[in-house]
Amino acid sequence: MSESFKTVRKNHQPHDHVVSIGASGVKIGGGHFGIIAGPCAVESSQQIVELAKAVKAAGANILRGGVFKPRTSPYDFQGLQAAGLELLKTAKQLTGMPIITELTATNWLPLFTEVDVIQIGARNSQNYELLKAVGKTQIPVLLKRGLAGTIKELLMSAEYLLAGGNENVILCERGIRTYETTYTRNTLDLSAIPVLKKLTHLPIVVDPSHGTGRADLVAPMALAATAAGADGLMIEVHNNPAKALSDKEQCLTPAEFQTLMQQVMKIREALS
Amino acid sequence: MSESFKTVRKNHQPHDHVVSIGASGVKIGGGHFGIIAGPCAVESSQQIVELAKAVKAAGANILRGGVFKPRTSPYDFQGLQAAGLELLKTAKQLTGMPIITELTATNWLPLFTEVDVIQIGARNSQNYELLKAVGKTQIPVLLKRGLAGTIKELLMSAEYLLAGGNENVILCERGIRTYETTYTRNTLDLSAIPVLKKLTHLPIVVDPSHGTGRADLVAPMALAATAAGADGLMIEVHNNPAKALSDKEQCLTPAEFQTLMQQVMKIREALS
Amino acid sequence: MSESFKTVRKNHQPHDHVVSIGASGVKIGGGHFGIIAGPCAVESSQQIVELAKAVKAAGANILRGGVFKPRTSPYDFQGLQAAGLELLKTAKQLTGMPIITELTATNWLPLFTEVDVIQIGARNSQNYELLKAVGKTQIPVLLKRGLAGTIKELLMSAEYLLAGGNENVILCERGIRTYETTYTRNTLDLSAIPVLKKLTHLPIVVDPSHGTGRADLVAPMALAATAAGADGLMIEVHNNPAKALSDKEQCLTPAEFQTLMQQVMKIREALS
Amino acid sequence: MSESFKTVRKNHQPHDHVVSIGASGVKIGGGHFGIIAGPCAVESSQQIVELAKAVKAAGANILRGGVFKPRTSPYDFQGLQAAGLELLKTAKQLTGMPIITELTATNWLPLFTEVDVIQIGARNSQNYELLKAVGKTQIPVLLKRGLAGTIKELLMSAEYLLAGGNENVILCERGIRTYETTYTRNTLDLSAIPVLKKLTHLPIVVDPSHGTGRADLVAPMALAATAAGADGLMIEVHNNPAKALSDKEQCLTPAEFQTLMQQVMKIREALS
Repeated sequence: MSESFKTVRKNHQPHDHVVSIGASGVKIGGGHFGIIAGPCAVESSQQIVELAKAVKAAGANILRGGVFKPRTSPYDFQGLQAAGLELLKTAKQLTGMPIITELTATNWLPLFTEVDVIQIGARNSQNYELLKAVGKTQIPVLLKRGLAGTIKELLMSAEYLLAGGNENVILCERGIRTYETTYTRNTLDLSAIPVLKKLTHLPIVVDPSHGTGRADLVAPMALAATAAGADGLMIEVHNNPAKALSDKEQCLTPAEFQTLMQQVMKIREALS
Repeated sequence: MSESFKTVRKNHQPHDHVVSIGASGVKIGGGHFGIIAGPCAVESSQQIVELAKAVKAAGANILRGGVFKPRTSPYDFQGLQAAGLELLKTAKQLTGMPIITELTATNWLPLFTEVDVIQIGARNSQNYELLKAVGKTQIPVLLKRGLAGTIKELLMSAEYLLAGGNENVILCERGIRTYETTYTRNTLDLSAIPVLKKLTHLPIVVDPSHGTGRADLVAPMALAATAAGADGLMIEVHNNPAKALSDKEQCLTPAEFQTLMQQVMKIREALS
Repeated sequence: MSESFKTVRKNHQPHDHVVSIGASGVKIGGGHFGIIAGPCAVESSQQIVELAKAVKAAGANILRGGVFKPRTSPYDFQGLQAAGLELLKTAKQLTGMPIITELTATNWLPLFTEVDVIQIGARNSQNYELLKAVGKTQIPVLLKRGLAGTIKELLMSAEYLLAGGNENVILCERGIRTYETTYTRNTLDLSAIPVLKKLTHLPIVVDPSHGTGRADLVAPMALAATAAGADGLMIEVHNNPAKALSDKEQCLTPAEFQTLMQQVMKIREALS
Repeated sequence: MSESFKTVRKNHQPHDHVVSIGASGVKIGGGHFGIIAGPCAVESSQQIVELAKAVKAAGANILRGGVFKPRTSPYDFQGLQAAGLELLKTAKQLTGMPIITELTATNWLPLFTEVDVIQIGARNSQNYELLKAVGKTQIPVLLKRGLAGTIKELLMSAEYLLAGGNENVILCERGIRTYETTYTRNTLDLSAIPVLKKLTHLPIVVDPSHGTGRADLVAPMALAATAAGADGLMIEVHNNPAKALSDKEQCLTPAEFQTLMQQVMKIREALS
């Protein structure tokens, strides 16, 4: 299948690809480190604005917040949808942070014009019709590895985006499904970082929040990902984890996030 | 999460659910055995019509044929799409067999009015927006288990369909991803059959073609699935496997399919 | 690695290998079907003798009973050991049934002279020093697939036995470890049966008791294994499952076992 | 099962356990970092002595070298066995480094009196008779996680050692078996480090050589393990990887190892 790695392959361009995030000046790849932080779901104007300010102050350069939420159960909170997107845009305006949020269906793409990075989630990692639609835009895309996605499949899904004309692709390792389900929700496969660095020029970001499913594992895994050479991190932060409408077990408080950012910077300095 | 099994759970209705397939009189579930057969992809008028006649003669009661093909590589054959759907309808008219084909995006749903069963493939097993759209129709749905889908997740995806108002759901075990990748493409989890029989009133069909990825394993696994209590089988048949445009390693010839059907019937008689 | 399949490979001998079990006249392989049944652990003289008579009456031709028990916790019942072996021999004398029990260390091998089949358990599937020791005897061996054992590894472990001079090897599929852990203890990989039939002349037996870990799944999986072409079954039976000292969740009562045996025979007749 | 975590559990003693390695003064745990390095297999006197000097110069404090080699194929090199052990002891005398080597059968235990750390390999992780025998000694043990071992099972195997009276146990994460087999031999589960740190007082070491199976992934994964809080590393080093008698794909040269050690120290300083 490696002959199918046409545009994603390492030698397609002579240097690591740098993805520029909208008009913000933020970059990911080629030495630029992206720190994406925010709540799992946008819940209210106050919540998202407060969190945006807090994560920005701690060192984050991209704000995350889910508004279209793919949930395993139809009876779980499905996100604030279009209204949530407006709140996210407000937070962007007030803080100047570029925003990332997940797209789960092509029909919502017209709403995403002011979104700086489109997230393709793990469940839609092989939703090729969605990838084709996003591949026709020039909006940067953060593409998550599927829950049982191989490295090959992740790259082939990226190939759908690049083949469509959108080269602004950031890959994201977020944990894979293994037999170990008692102590971690997923198994974060950090070896994917150096493996992908050999295969592709695209930047790779790690999500230790979904990758472990446990708040107390986020910091050590974020540090490990940084040491392994990741181009960025994606971390869930909530001002009141116990009351989060989703993923409450895995989000950090702003204070925990700030402490972590300081350690991440130390690792980056040590290895530079 | 079992508290979320509202409409799919065993006791939601007092008997096994029987799914009636269009105007054809074919039923699946509650003692009715569905035999879905045909090529991985519709390739030409002659191919699909010939195969329809052959599989019908051998005992199949539903014709399968992919027209919108989700392929790992963007450079692989993506199916004949709308034109292929017309060929499939022609085969339906000529043979009287109800037809099943995969839907990969909501925007093609209007084309599916004459399709008797909509297939939701493994890659879209947690594409909830697609499930919501199909849940608003009354067209029977064959819902495949995701490649790393748990039994819970399969049932929760079915719950999306039933919660939307569409109760005509057939579950499909099609192999899961495990560490054994040298001799089989996937690991067919036949224990899912009796597990699901305990949990839900919905019928369950097994796809040994995708479940093993090897033509020589299709017959023994089809017999095993029948012995384990499946409500039906889904089998890829091609008149010239070596020249099939996709999945050539796993399709049976019409003659092999006919022999298998005779053995399947013997198993069913032995256990009745 | 296939070049290492020297003595286990299909064409090493022109016909399927038939393993003769001691002086009993019982055979497994080449059309001979072995039905191994009995308790997980030998608990008392009365228990093992009663069960031996019950499973023999129902159609079993080999009696199983663990005496050296490999348990995950050091604080769990470790088996009656040498004393249990004496009880198992008594049951053999009273019923005429050949016996199988697990060997977990080479130093107990001298005690196994009257044992008809030595079982190598899943945890010791790659305990090569144990395999080398057993390979020097002529006692038939039932070799279980490791919990994460590939088909290749199972055959290479068998190769250790044959290379040592012991050709009386029966392979045993007993479920592999996958991400599905909520509804089944392991995932029984029945496709291993036809895969192994292509690769080796050795007989293959299936253990649906350990393969599923649930008594209600044993019968459908035993029937499925039979339909898929297994050369035998290994099933846990206990006269009082609720009080069994180990594996109480997965053992059948003698009555359930008898009903199952009748169905197994019907499947075998249907396919003969 | 957590109630069975009697002696391995975090609160069994009030502080992290420090394992002292023989008379060498080397310690692992409680802030002491162990660097175990050397060849996969001891091949000759010259090889092991040269490598011992090289890895010591680069910062290693324990010398590894396999002499009893568990190999998947009976036809592969099985190690120099007792003669190899003598060579390893020579290297110990010449360099003053404590030595670690794998024990695969209880009958070789009398040969291990001058061995400083006994390694229990992944394949013998649940060989309870071997664990019981080693548990009766006071020799420090490095216990590797099984290829499909859960965190629970690793701790229960350690419990066998501690219950026997040997508290000098070092746990070792060395990669687990997952569906990703194309680009890595195993999936190194670094989240096991913080998970185990919460559950037990025992030190945990990481083996990125076996954990990835690829030399080019060893350095990034060693750095990641250090950042995640490991108490040590175990790394294969060979003076001529291309000619190594086993595991040639995954061993570093002494020069690569030296560069890595410098980076590891920078990470440790950054986080101290």
